[in-house]
Amino acid sequence: GPMTSDRASIAVIPGDGIGPEVVEQALAVLTAACGEQAFEFTHYDLGARHWLETGEVLDDDTLARLARHDAIVLGAVGAAPGSAQVPSGLLERGLLLRLRFAFDQDVNLRPSRLYPGVPSPLAPAVLDRGPIDFVVVREGTEGLYAGNGGALRRGTPHEVATEVSVNTAFGVERVVRYAFELAATRRGRVTLVHKHNVLVNAGGLWRRIVDEVAADHPGVEHDYLHVDAATIMLVTDPQRFDVIVTDNLFGDILTDEAGAITGGIGLAPSANINTAGRFPSMFEPVHGSAPDIAGRGVADPTAAISSMALLLRHLGRGADADRVDAAVSADIESNRGTARSTGQIGGAIAAALR
Amino acid sequence: GPMTSDRASIAVIPGDGIGPEVVEQALAVLTAACGEQAFEFTHYDLGARHWLETGEVLDDDTLARLARHDAIVLGAVGAAPGSAQVPSGLLERGLLLRLRFAFDQDVNLRPSRLYPGVPSPLAPAVLDRGPIDFVVVREGTEGLYAGNGGALRRGTPHEVATEVSVNTAFGVERVVRYAFELAATRRGRVTLVHKHNVLVNAGGLWRRIVDEVAADHPGVEHDYLHVDAATIMLVTDPQRFDVIVTDNLFGDILTDEAGAITGGIGLAPSANINTAGRFPSMFEPVHGSAPDIAGRGVADPTAAISSMALLLRHLGRGADADRVDAAVSADIESNRGTARSTGQIGGAIAAALR
Ligand SMILES: CC(C)[C@H](C(=O)O)[C@@H](O)C(=O)O
Ligand SMILES: CC(C)[C@H](C(=O)O)[C@@H](O)C(=O)O
Repeated sequence: GPMTSDRASIAVIPGDGIGPEVVEQALAVLTAACGEQAFEFTHYDLGARHWLETGEVLDDDTLARLARHDAIVLGAVGAAPGSAQVPSGLLERGLLLRLRFAFDQDVNLRPSRLYPGVPSPLAPAVLDRGPIDFVVVREGTEGLYAGNGGALRRGTPHEVATEVSVNTAFGVERVVRYAFELAATRRGRVTLVHKHNVLVNAGGLWRRIVDEVAADHPGVEHDYLHVDAATIMLVTDPQRFDVIVTDNLFGDILTDEAGAITGGIGLAPSANINTAGRFPSMFEPVHGSAPDIAGRGVADPTAAISSMALLLRHLGRGADADRVDAAVSADIESNRGTARSTGQIGGAIAAALR
Repeated sequence: GPMTSDRASIAVIPGDGIGPEVVEQALAVLTAACGEQAFEFTHYDLGARHWLETGEVLDDDTLARLARHDAIVLGAVGAAPGSAQVPSGLLERGLLLRLRFAFDQDVNLRPSRLYPGVPSPLAPAVLDRGPIDFVVVREGTEGLYAGNGGALRRGTPHEVATEVSVNTAFGVERVVRYAFELAATRRGRVTLVHKHNVLVNAGGLWRRIVDEVAADHPGVEHDYLHVDAATIMLVTDPQRFDVIVTDNLFGDILTDEAGAITGGIGLAPSANINTAGRFPSMFEPVHGSAPDIAGRGVADPTAAISSMALLLRHLGRGADADRVDAAVSADIESNRGTARSTGQIGGAIAAALR
């Protein structure tokens, strides 16, 4: 019989909205790429529906069980922004961010690539400058996402609401090192994005660490852009970027804009990596739960599938990761502009890998 | 002789880099539009050079003198991001933000319009959806710009740097009211941009105030976008926006992206309005000091000139404001793609107004 102990143990959190739809395809692709025996999948029913039924977002026991897996595949969590049933932030902070923080997923890796033939909202004059291919290394465990805020006199005309961005040398250094090491395997250029002319404390810390780490990487160039200028460059000269390193919130903003210019966040994968290797890393599409299109089989599973390439690479299966990437590229190129269902896209990519 | 007491008294802060170059053209246009007797200009030498010479960023006496003017025209302040001579944030926080805060300029008004014939980095498929014409009402006196941050163990491997976003019901309500009143004179739609699923305290405050103010404006629709989604919409469907209301940092980011899609921040004007009318409002282009192109006469003064239309409207000279706007539009349309110097552009617009 198969040596089940050799299987990688994958926790699967389909989540809300289109999450389950795209995750189904992502898992089918994993199996197609590596065979039935490569993985053991354990599903966890978490998200809006689970909370409405049980009142539980993520209990300590579930968290402890999740910690034992080799990796986590996540679809999407969160109700519609205006939902009356689910309080804003409950699932985002209680589930998605809780996992990123509890499992110390410091590097939120978000590659952006414009595949040939994918329509971009950018003008030919911009696209003609060359291929768009960069990676955002977004810090994932601190900044304004730390949850250190509060409110005084809530609900009154005298309310004062605060949010605190917490940034540590420890937290910044590990993602900056990751970014420089990654750039050394690519085109050798790191761009720090921050707003150090206003956020002088946090910005000063990021600059100092980048300068220190850069000294250890003489072969990697580095430059700096204020976040406002970076949003301009993404639409006027995206080719200038190789590796962007930035904080949690700026990374959130830039990667959605990056997704948009490369044909939509329906194509943008991400990895939440615990670089220390003590906890499972988590792989998820950049897009959200998109409740408006859920249940109709029209969600594009490509981002979730590409995230599986990141998972395979993380688990040491680089050749399989390359095959998934190649199958995704080929599928996109040979189906330019064709409207296909979630299952058709996933099925075609899985079939190509079998 | 002329009744000098009827003149509006304008403080002029040309500032750094291309600031003086574009301000010179802006003042020439003001004079051309309203005559030699309409304004009394008082120049204030402030900025990087002034600081290097005197060690003074903005002393209390100068601030008190500035407070007595009817309005302030500002070019741009700030040294190059990597400058070794000027500490990061010194001029931004000590001069530009000091003025916005000291003069309680709560509404930072930033119109975005794609003029016919101006090249946009967006694809024809996006532009063909219709004209792009929206206004960002950016809060100007609180949020992460409050300067409430600090650092522990600075410069060590144990550094902790914080930045605190401070948001008050008072501060939010006045800009939200302004946004709804503005929308009522336009296409009747306000979009709140925030990140309330993560920044639950600040985001909760903004949502509550928007809902409250909306109840007083049944004729104005309103919706909500997370800031990451808003950066997507700006490149895929900018026509959906009429009035965006948002906080200080999100407004900074969105208005640069908005400038980029409407042909560059060289065209984007702004007004920092003290809505209470107790202090002078300040008019400035959205762009910065652009030290890389300073001194060469190639900076586009259009943004500074359009800011003068906002100044004229603020001073009750609506007809003159319309004439300046029309002259700017006509100049842009009749010079599509022609490379012109700073003086040629300003001179042409001024000549059309005389
Ligand atoms: C859902 C939300 C909390 C999340 C984030 O802000 O990180 C999402 O936008 C993302 O980018 O993964
Ligand atoms: C120079 C800088 C402090 C300023 C800001 O961040 O507000 C600028 O980017 C702007 O948008 O006016």
